[in-house]
Amino acid sequence: MALLVEKFGGTSVGTIERIHRIAELIERTYRAGNEVVVVVSAMSGETDRLLRLAHEITSQPDDRELDMLLSCGERVTIALLAMKLRSRGINARSFTGRQVGIVTNSSHTRARIAKVTADPVKQALDQGVLPIVAGFQGVNERSEVTTLGRGGSDLTAVALAATLKADRCVIFTDVDGVYTTDPNVVSSARRIPKLSYEEMLELASLGAKVLQARSVEFAAKYGVPVQVKSSFQEGEGTLVTHEDADMEQAVVSGVTGDRNQAKITVVGVPDRPGIAANLFGVVAEHSIVVDMIIQNVSHQDALTDISFTVPRSDLARAMDLVKQTAAEIGAGAVEVKEAIAKVSLVGVGMRSHSGVASRMFQTLAREKVNIMMISTSEIKISCVLDERDVDKAVRALHEEFGLDKGPGRAESA
Amino acid sequence: MALLVEKFGGTSVGTIERIHRIAELIERTYRAGNEVVVVVSAMSGETDRLLRLAHEITSQPDDRELDMLLSCGERVTIALLAMKLRSRGINARSFTGRQVGIVTNSSHTRARIAKVTADPVKQALDQGVLPIVAGFQGVNERSEVTTLGRGGSDLTAVALAATLKADRCVIFTDVDGVYTTDPNVVSSARRIPKLSYEEMLELASLGAKVLQARSVEFAAKYGVPVQVKSSFQEGEGTLVTHEDADMEQAVVSGVTGDRNQAKITVVGVPDRPGIAANLFGVVAEHSIVVDMIIQNVSHQDALTDISFTVPRSDLARAMDLVKQTAAEIGAGAVEVKEAIAKVSLVGVGMRSHSGVASRMFQTLAREKVNIMMISTSEIKISCVLDERDVDKAVRALHEEFGLDKGPGRAESA
Repeated sequence: MALLVEKFGGTSVGTIERIHRIAELIERTYRAGNEVVVVVSAMSGETDRLLRLAHEITSQPDDRELDMLLSCGERVTIALLAMKLRSRGINARSFTGRQVGIVTNSSHTRARIAKVTADPVKQALDQGVLPIVAGFQGVNERSEVTTLGRGGSDLTAVALAATLKADRCVIFTDVDGVYTTDPNVVSSARRIPKLSYEEMLELASLGAKVLQARSVEFAAKYGVPVQVKSSFQEGEGTLVTHEDADMEQAVVSGVTGDRNQAKITVVGVPDRPGIAANLFGVVAEHSIVVDMIIQNVSHQDALTDISFTVPRSDLARAMDLVKQTAAEIGAGAVEVKEAIAKVSLVGVGMRSHSGVASRMFQTLAREKVNIMMISTSEIKISCVLDERDVDKAVRALHEEFGLDKGPGRAESA
Repeated sequence: MALLVEKFGGTSVGTIERIHRIAELIERTYRAGNEVVVVVSAMSGETDRLLRLAHEITSQPDDRELDMLLSCGERVTIALLAMKLRSRGINARSFTGRQVGIVTNSSHTRARIAKVTADPVKQALDQGVLPIVAGFQGVNERSEVTTLGRGGSDLTAVALAATLKADRCVIFTDVDGVYTTDPNVVSSARRIPKLSYEEMLELASLGAKVLQARSVEFAAKYGVPVQVKSSFQEGEGTLVTHEDADMEQAVVSGVTGDRNQAKITVVGVPDRPGIAANLFGVVAEHSIVVDMIIQNVSHQDALTDISFTVPRSDLARAMDLVKQTAAEIGAGAVEVKEAIAKVSLVGVGMRSHSGVASRMFQTLAREKVNIMMISTSEIKISCVLDERDVDKAVRALHEEFGLDKGPGRAESA
């Protein structure tokens, strides 16, 4: 018998039939003698429908009112799921974000959790009630409705699991776990049975949509074991937990290819202290995340070239800012390359295994892939390439590091 | 400059275009220097959509969860309307039933208001904010969401107007006021400029859908002037207020024909004390409202016949109960007549004018309409007729009491 927080995403509750299906899943876990707290998202399509209404009303909807509007999506799901479970004889009860005591700051549409009391959930559990909680939402200290941003239901689930000291937080989704790479690109991609928080965080930051990065940070901070699994098929999924001895057996856990990047180069930047700070300071002020930066060695004329990458969706805004700043600091032309991609290797095993980087570069050279930029962290190496090389590079690296031969990492938790 | 509570029903906010339209109406009143509090219903069709979802989930949805579900309808409207007004430069802010302090008992789906603090609304008004309040909903003392039943948004508006001591509560709807009779039946029907609370209450009980009966009672209790007007066209509508000298000039204010009735007759009831109480006690216990009762004089065999009317929608349930009770008390057959209707005259002038009843009976006799049952109150006379006579009877009475000749009652408020 365990205390489990189970979270079901939008596609898992997307239709009445699917709500019936997950009610069965929940009932099975509950009847097996576990204490269960369920967190749900809005039915898939519902958030978009509400956003469409808002944009029909005005091109720039007020953030506070958007939160009031969007929070309805999850409220509909909790009511329907609670009804379903009650009709099956289970004492389920719906709870809004406010009702479970999720208190956030006042940054509407992207609020951060300040405090989780969860007292009403504890009381409900003590009374044998199965709480069905609205994900994605909270209230600020003035009791105004806030939302946690896209993917925020994961955060609700992890935060509740941490507060309740749950044995596990199970994220039910439409895939059966985290994969060694995108199965749509590499057919031999395999499910990873076990990952460390740090690896999952790197993978989430690299665009793996299966878990929201903030919820992984939260899980790591409070040591909540997170299991990612499918709500449509049986299986153990992927367990995200503290690094353990098993994990070091695999040098590399996953390979990612991220096309959501663009490269900006500022040519002929005066090579004086503070110039780079000036340039990137302006970009950061506008909440644009700069990923990689390369500064060439100075020319003889004390001018240098600076290249950096930004998310492609922020490119237009970034270019406006950079051109203006380049003019102010007396730099030359500003050049853009959109058709780039970032290929990354992630694995805690890199800490104890040297030579991963050189093996990566050799593999890419063998495939005649040109590397434009490189960045590394303790458990990650990323290379920026021409976009047309990305699938080839991912396939070659996936094979080189034996990710197609399973199981490279022990299944046992 | 006045403090006004303005309520807009489902059809008035039924589409994005209509929300734009009422935003203009509200802006006009606000820019004219008035303090305005707005109460809205769910967009028309939305409550039915949510109910449909609930019934796809289970044939008997839990009442508490239904309230959680249905309360979303109004939340969507308050957010959209507040966004619209904010985009026009007005400092509007949405409030849920909980956020304005509407506290109810725990009778989910038909909760009664226990307390209205409205402090957040007062504070908002003091700060120059235009509050947009979700109608139809509140919270019980455990802060669980409750709803006030169909038409409950009227009650929210009147309760807020009472608590805020507003100068007027304006109910915007899809008709331009209360009429002397149904304009679909009698083409010469006229709008009534002014009505007393008691008259409005009788008319609402007789099926006039323009104002919910409970909200009229509430308005009468706290002396809130209620104006009913169209959100689609200009006009003064109907003002519902305390009885004044003007009102007595018209003997009859309105004529109604109500087809939502059925007659049950229990034949051969033993004429002993307590027998009627027995019969009607059972019916009342099941929340079926018995409207009129007739007991014949006793036969020589100490048996009597009892006839009474119930809403047609409750007929099947009522018959089950009555048949069972009739058997228990040793009565004879139970007969039913569905094709009946109730025609009523309403007017505070009846108090000071005698002879209204006899004029009514003469008019019906002239039209060869047979009267089956009669009931009267201080300001109302009702007759039960064969259903096929109802339109003829309404037309004849409307003309007999001069309701087609306007204005019979002063327009001035």
